[in-house]
Amino acid sequence: MAIKDDIVVRVAQRRDVPEMVALLQDDVLSTSREDTADLQPYYDAWDEIILDPNAEILVLDLDGRVVGMAQLNYSRQMGRKGQRRCTIEAVRISQALRSQGLGAVLIENSLDLARARGCDTVQLTTDKRRTDAQRFYQRLGFAASHEGMKLYL
Amino acid sequence: MAIKDDIVVRVAQRRDVPEMVALLQDDVLSTSREDTADLQPYYDAWDEIILDPNAEILVLDLDGRVVGMAQLNYSRQMGRKGQRRCTIEAVRISQALRSQGLGAVLIENSLDLARARGCDTVQLTTDKRRTDAQRFYQRLGFAASHEGMKLYL
Repeated sequence: MAIKDDIVVRVAQRRDVPEMVALLQDDVLSTSREDTADLQPYYDAWDEIILDPNAEILVLDLDGRVVGMAQLNYSRQMGRKGQRRCTIEAVRISQALRSQGLGAVLIENSLDLARARGCDTVQLTTDKRRTDAQRFYQRLGFAASHEGMKLYL
Repeated sequence: MAIKDDIVVRVAQRRDVPEMVALLQDDVLSTSREDTADLQPYYDAWDEIILDPNAEILVLDLDGRVVGMAQLNYSRQMGRKGQRRCTIEAVRISQALRSQGLGAVLIENSLDLARARGCDTVQLTTDKRRTDAQRFYQRLGFAASHEGMKLYL
């Protein structure tokens, strides 16, 4: 049986924080940005996110282990006749389990949640160096129509 | 005296909705997405945005007329040690008043608000066809480091 048939998609719990941070760090581009030795800032962020009715974190659970995650933020926009929009951030799949369809399970579940919230648009940005990720999102129906511009304060 | 010295930057009010919709429509790429004949969906969106503590709309006011706007959404992230992030959407300057520095006034004020909220990152996406916009944001310090991917549900 394929691993993806054993995967449970669920909303994150506070007890998942250490495994989510490990996932965030388990990535060639973002490893230096995270610090698994001091989890307090992550718990602080968690406690704020969980109170935000427009924020949601999905995890992939494999036999009780968190092996994937995505953070969803919903916003109402003035443009496009007051559309609802979903912005996806921090998409991660455990390096050891990539290329087995888990990412598609995670994103398809995210799209279902966005639909349930009445969103017309789902958007994300991905580092231009992540060419595999861009092909992955294009297969799922995303178009690379925009420049994703960042400014670090 | 330059027009930008007469500009007042302020948070939007409900009475600004018609002029904001006119601004959204006053754009070569988005004119067909908007409908100034039926403002109800925009008022509905406004009434939801104003109740969201993580959403804010800035306008440029020139002698009582709304000549620019930007929508800001703040989110707490799990990544980057629980960073706060500001996503800017729906940036518009009246076509008749472009290239006079108003956009810079609008974005610089947006960056100040993001700083005041403790954000580390400000992000936006801009249609790849808007090459002038990309140069504008680069002059203000933004880097086009990411692909901006969109999926319309």
